[in-house]
Amino acid sequence: MNIADVIHAKADGPQGQIFTIGPGDNVTTLLAALAEHNVGALVVTEGSADDLQVVGIVSERDIVRRLARDGAEILDRPVSEIMTTSVLTCTPADAVDAIAETMTDRRIRHMPVLADGKLAGLVSIGDVVRSRIRQLEHDRGQLEQYISS
Amino acid sequence: MNIADVIHAKADGPQGQIFTIGPGDNVTTLLAALAEHNVGALVVTEGSADDLQVVGIVSERDIVRRLARDGAEILDRPVSEIMTTSVLTCTPADAVDAIAETMTDRRIRHMPVLADGKLAGLVSIGDVVRSRIRQLEHDRGQLEQYISS
Repeated sequence: MNIADVIHAKADGPQGQIFTIGPGDNVTTLLAALAEHNVGALVVTEGSADDLQVVGIVSERDIVRRLARDGAEILDRPVSEIMTTSVLTCTPADAVDAIAETMTDRRIRHMPVLADGKLAGLVSIGDVVRSRIRQLEHDRGQLEQYISS
Repeated sequence: MNIADVIHAKADGPQGQIFTIGPGDNVTTLLAALAEHNVGALVVTEGSADDLQVVGIVSERDIVRRLARDGAEILDRPVSEIMTTSVLTCTPADAVDAIAETMTDRRIRHMPVLADGKLAGLVSIGDVVRSRIRQLEHDRGQLEQYISS
């Protein structure tokens, strides 16, 4: 099972769209966008719709940590000041178990998916571990069936 | 494998302590506590140390959603105004797979663990699914060994 399967499973559900924000948008706009789409993170992108460049990722965690440090003044600051710029990405061909391990080990909640360098999706640790659990349950079922037959 | 195993695994690591906050503490204090302990949620408790009563749970998500709605004024408001009061809890005896399913289905990230009605821990969806994956990998290994022998 690979990341393409995870993206396709999401594409059929309510979390199928990729939501993005610009680095120059402010944190108040970001808060509204997270609430509107009911998500915990957005990919920060620059460029035209058919050639989006990923410049960062910004999450609830980034907001609350900066709020703790700098207070309410961050609400007027641009997303570029609070986003994470060292973004680990994956591709549709990556194996789910490898990505699940990377996200768990490095405590990464969200990872953009790039296909031929273009933004193709965003997977969360939740998406990835759910796929991993389904795969393992399937494997166990197959082995049990093999033993009993 | 049950929730007691998850708590014991956490107790040996950096996330072993249970961090709590009072319903009367304000959101600025909450932000500082989340940053200090490097966690995403705290259990809201009342009462003396040997008889803590769980009155709610409060997370990064609660903060950013209320910030989006009400703006910076929430920073001075008490935790009781933004916390989630309908808290699903579990016990050390609960099976990990059942709790993993409940948390996934109901999109609950954190669940307090009560032992004899007393707060005994806090498990995250991450803790629970990691245990579930380890269990399934172990099961698969056993079955494969059985088949090859």
